[in-house]
Amino acid sequence: MGVVIPLEEVAHERRAEALLTLVAADMERVNQTILAHAGSHVEMIPEIANHLIASGGKRLRPMLTLATAGLCGYGGDGHVKLAAAVEFMHTATLLHDDVVDESDMRRGKLAARMLWGNEATVLVGDYLLGQAFKMMVEVGSLPCLDVLSSAAVVIAEGEVMQLAAAKDTQTSEDDYLAVIRAKTAALFAAACEVGPTLAHRPKAEIAACRGYGVNLGIAFQLIDDALDYGGASAKLGKNVGDDFREGKITLPVVLSFRRGSEHERAFWRRTLEQGEIANGDLETAIATMHKHRGLEDTIERARHYGAMARDALELFPASAWKAALIDVVDFCIERVH
Amino acid sequence: MGVVIPLEEVAHERRAEALLTLVAADMERVNQTILAHAGSHVEMIPEIANHLIASGGKRLRPMLTLATAGLCGYGGDGHVKLAAAVEFMHTATLLHDDVVDESDMRRGKLAARMLWGNEATVLVGDYLLGQAFKMMVEVGSLPCLDVLSSAAVVIAEGEVMQLAAAKDTQTSEDDYLAVIRAKTAALFAAACEVGPTLAHRPKAEIAACRGYGVNLGIAFQLIDDALDYGGASAKLGKNVGDDFREGKITLPVVLSFRRGSEHERAFWRRTLEQGEIANGDLETAIATMHKHRGLEDTIERARHYGAMARDALELFPASAWKAALIDVVDFCIERVH
Repeated sequence: MGVVIPLEEVAHERRAEALLTLVAADMERVNQTILAHAGSHVEMIPEIANHLIASGGKRLRPMLTLATAGLCGYGGDGHVKLAAAVEFMHTATLLHDDVVDESDMRRGKLAARMLWGNEATVLVGDYLLGQAFKMMVEVGSLPCLDVLSSAAVVIAEGEVMQLAAAKDTQTSEDDYLAVIRAKTAALFAAACEVGPTLAHRPKAEIAACRGYGVNLGIAFQLIDDALDYGGASAKLGKNVGDDFREGKITLPVVLSFRRGSEHERAFWRRTLEQGEIANGDLETAIATMHKHRGLEDTIERARHYGAMARDALELFPASAWKAALIDVVDFCIERVH
Repeated sequence: MGVVIPLEEVAHERRAEALLTLVAADMERVNQTILAHAGSHVEMIPEIANHLIASGGKRLRPMLTLATAGLCGYGGDGHVKLAAAVEFMHTATLLHDDVVDESDMRRGKLAARMLWGNEATVLVGDYLLGQAFKMMVEVGSLPCLDVLSSAAVVIAEGEVMQLAAAKDTQTSEDDYLAVIRAKTAALFAAACEVGPTLAHRPKAEIAACRGYGVNLGIAFQLIDDALDYGGASAKLGKNVGDDFREGKITLPVVLSFRRGSEHERAFWRRTLEQGEIANGDLETAIATMHKHRGLEDTIERARHYGAMARDALELFPASAWKAALIDVVDFCIERVH
């Protein structure tokens, strides 16, 4: 099947090419590990797990585990299983998120819960989380287990915080940051921390990798949130408006609400708090955001965290790994154009 | 508040008294650990967690961890955190079960999902599972982490198997046993295995404790399933009929369906498969079960696994711990009278 890729997308993909090339051999092993551990004699489990696993997420998080291990000169084998465990934790979160958000679609396919029901989706999420821990235990590094189990706790806290803040237009930028720091950035941070931890690198290097991960994770989520309203361009791609329809309070909303008139605030309250959405409201929301630079400044904030991610790595001498990891920051931010 | 306890219940409680006395001091520390780790700065988490934790389950599983550690002469501290982790795994399963079963009640109180919604219930389950792993990591025993993370995988498999078999009157006794071995007995087994593992006991002793746990767990679940239809007496207590209304295929049903006439099988298909339940159907179900000794033989099967549990411990010399653990088998089975 031939797919026509617009020129600007090619340039964008190229930014991540260095990373893709460097991790290619290890990612092959990660993918095999993922497939091997998504299997079970209980039929429904591989069915549901593979529905999501095979639908081709970017696998950014396991790549970060491999790349930060490479950056720190790790010579062992454990990073492959830890990378697979990180992806399983992410997949389990997506499955439970779909149930929590009552989502119909995920990655352009019907969400698992639409095909197998909420019940099986919750349970297969639990299964993948169990398998993730089992893989970590097989690697046998207690410090890595500490990093990843702590992340699991923080991610769940972040999801609950997000639920509590849902539909609340009073949410402040700091509240919002606390949510995405927990629900998204904590796993990016853990994914980047386990490589240097496995390699027994000094504390400062471990902290640098963690700092890279947490700030990259925040930038990544901010861009995701901007993309959900079409990003900087007014171009409406697929999935645009999902957050709006679910009443999610993301930074573009927080900024536009605070900067808006009483009339505009009434609009946000009606659509996001009361969920009364009429035809044309999404377009009004996007226009109001552009009027107040809500999307542009969300992207600006992402650039700020991107800069922090890049600087966190400055501790390390120049290397192909370092260059590739720095390119990933641009890759994550330039998705928006 | 004075509560009148019937005499036969007093006699029944006495059976578990030896265990309760032996573990009292350690259980106090387990309870403190549970409360300390159910807390979070995210408000909804302690609210939901404590709703279930404070509603006073028997805490049988953590007591088994403490008692098998005692049986094996463990002199350290790790068993307390592992016992708390076992209880958290159990609590997380209950929260997710309520969402899966769409239960309205749990332990005589409104189920968490009725008060906080399915979303928060799923996420707080995830949080408790994360905290369970964090506690295990703090204890620092990789073999114990292996036992408990493997159990987490098997429990989730068991829950999915149960879901797949739901409402299927073709379920065989072996199918049913495979489900409860995974969803219930795996955690009993793990709870009993970590004590001797922590104490670095020989393989045979670890296997003996595991064997005790797995067989006790099966017996426990069989009795639970019999109790859901009023047990051996025809007395209808609270919660009787929950499994019937949910279309759960448990051993009393499996036996009564196989032993029944075509007319009776049509009854089970209508009520359990099609969920068409009319007034008086529960009473008919119970009467049909008694006619075919479906409840009596479920209890007989439980006695068989109880005997296996007792014999598994015969490897150990006489001790107060051993006597208390053997009493627990009777305690679990005699709940039914």
